[in-house]
Amino acid sequence: MSLQIFPVTGIGEVTPGADLAELIVTAAPWLADGDVLVVTSKIISKAEGRLVPLPAPGPARETARIDVIAGETARTVAARGSTRIVATHHGFVMASAGVDASNVDSDHVVLLPKDPDGAARMLRATLAARHHRRVAVVVSDTMGRPWRNGLTDVALGAAGIPPLRDHRGETDRYGNPLTLTQQAQVDQLAAAADLVKGKIDGVPVAVVRGLPLAPPDGPARDGVTLTADPPGVVETLVRNPADDLFSLGTAEARAAGLRAAATLPDTPPLALHALPAAALAEVRRAVALVTGSAAASADWVVTDGPPCVVRGTSAGAPLRLGSDVHRLRAALAAAGLATAVEYHEPATALVTVGADE
Amino acid sequence: MSLQIFPVTGIGEVTPGADLAELIVTAAPWLADGDVLVVTSKIISKAEGRLVPLPAPGPARETARIDVIAGETARTVAARGSTRIVATHHGFVMASAGVDASNVDSDHVVLLPKDPDGAARMLRATLAARHHRRVAVVVSDTMGRPWRNGLTDVALGAAGIPPLRDHRGETDRYGNPLTLTQQAQVDQLAAAADLVKGKIDGVPVAVVRGLPLAPPDGPARDGVTLTADPPGVVETLVRNPADDLFSLGTAEARAAGLRAAATLPDTPPLALHALPAAALAEVRRAVALVTGSAAASADWVVTDGPPCVVRGTSAGAPLRLGSDVHRLRAALAAAGLATAVEYHEPATALVTVGADE
Repeated sequence: MSLQIFPVTGIGEVTPGADLAELIVTAAPWLADGDVLVVTSKIISKAEGRLVPLPAPGPARETARIDVIAGETARTVAARGSTRIVATHHGFVMASAGVDASNVDSDHVVLLPKDPDGAARMLRATLAARHHRRVAVVVSDTMGRPWRNGLTDVALGAAGIPPLRDHRGETDRYGNPLTLTQQAQVDQLAAAADLVKGKIDGVPVAVVRGLPLAPPDGPARDGVTLTADPPGVVETLVRNPADDLFSLGTAEARAAGLRAAATLPDTPPLALHALPAAALAEVRRAVALVTGSAAASADWVVTDGPPCVVRGTSAGAPLRLGSDVHRLRAALAAAGLATAVEYHEPATALVTVGADE
Repeated sequence: MSLQIFPVTGIGEVTPGADLAELIVTAAPWLADGDVLVVTSKIISKAEGRLVPLPAPGPARETARIDVIAGETARTVAARGSTRIVATHHGFVMASAGVDASNVDSDHVVLLPKDPDGAARMLRATLAARHHRRVAVVVSDTMGRPWRNGLTDVALGAAGIPPLRDHRGETDRYGNPLTLTQQAQVDQLAAAADLVKGKIDGVPVAVVRGLPLAPPDGPARDGVTLTADPPGVVETLVRNPADDLFSLGTAEARAAGLRAAATLPDTPPLALHALPAAALAEVRRAVALVTGSAAASADWVVTDGPPCVVRGTSAGAPLRLGSDVHRLRAALAAAGLATAVEYHEPATALVTVGADE
């Protein structure tokens, strides 16, 4: 199997209400069954009228831009300076919610398409029904990523092609099971297409030819048979934040840890469970961390239990003991251990340590 | 410009000491000047002998695998269960330091190439000098990424092609400057090549034809002229962790925040600077957060200053006041504000708040 990637030139300016299928087939009359059409999200947004006018240059323009981004933001993931990495309402994590001022006149910004998978399906269906081309469609956009400089194009939407190429259940030629191998093929198609699209050449569409697509076994529409659409990009490629090891920026997560320390409840919301043996070593480490960093203000006694209890006693420095008790609780929370505290004013505090389920 | 992507089949098993240039040219005698050769890192590792034998299946094998990963790890970025996302000694952030058990017999694991850019340069130079092919070389590997399911291939090394295609300084056709647009073209080439390589077909090499490479203006080697090698992938694509908003996993950064709360020094290491007006609102918010979450144990008075000072006084509950003072300091640290604390035992604590440079 070899692939060819063709730029589609001559599409020209796309305006709200434009008929993209017509524009594409006119520019690429050679479009053929089995091709994958990779379409820059920007021309879909423009055709959908997802343009927002900006005030004249100046502070009002910057404020308006920030408001537009806020409207497209479901959750801020990380911020530094004027950079905002956010999750959009679709779930994509990207800078400025994908709101973009390039390749549009300077008095507008362009929003992402409302439903990129839906737009891909509609374009695919129209190309089949009206132009008798059975193609797959990938809607692409440009994104940065953690850890690596430079941008790459990835998919925002897809139709007629499964976003993941699933190798799970297969074995390599040594017989090793490929347990983790799901390639995000639509992202790779978007990246491949960008190699011929460029950013300034006015080439918003490319065609990838030669990829084996699923057989055309779907219902006929106007005489053209289409496969049923597999689940889209949003459904398959957007990871649930709860499953993500990087759901928040480092500075934001660190601040969340500091806020958690500020608001540790005296009694944890869940019952404390008996500590595994390894955790008793963590308790001793936490006590050493706190007593090592503070002036000696108290005597500390650890009872292994269960329950494991740390007792702090101070004759003359109750404020410092109270502070150190809270330091200890924060250190234990950092190690994943939950605590309950009792203050026996003015000289003794008891910290009960448990495994938080 | 259109591209073609060809798989290189028939390379067969690669063993330590193998002559990759010879294997590739034999399998792809059609390799031509200007082609980009995308080579899976695994066959480079195998040719370099970067294979580590494992003990017989069982707990010892798992321990050995963990030790091998630790040896390839410069820094652990995130961990959950048995998953380890680490920075390798090259600086790549990836699962298990790229140590892989697929496409190798089950008694070995494969390490990443020691110097993927160097390996790319050597392969390129050998292909030029001995086989008279002037090509670019990209060394690829498969990685996961935050926020999106599925894996994509990216570049670990490159020669004869700049890793970034730089659009900065150009303008789009509306005259907007493209200030941020640096496409990681070698990553996109790796992704494109994977579309024809697959994971189980024994196709470790692909050729991308049609990309305009730099003119061959470098020094002649054995009669073949090569361009000087631009900086490699490690130098250009690996982001400095200090510049990265996601240098640590969310759980790890949150734990670091809790640990920071446990170890706040009584006096910050840097001089406190006068608070900007906006920060005074943060101070009031932090006081409200702490006094709202704790039982009323003290009177709190905020003096705007400079310096801004929060005074807590308690007649009968000094332990709780000490604890609440530390909660307050953690809340202020979460807002980016540094504090110094003085305990006037047993009833009064003074927290001085400053902007930390």
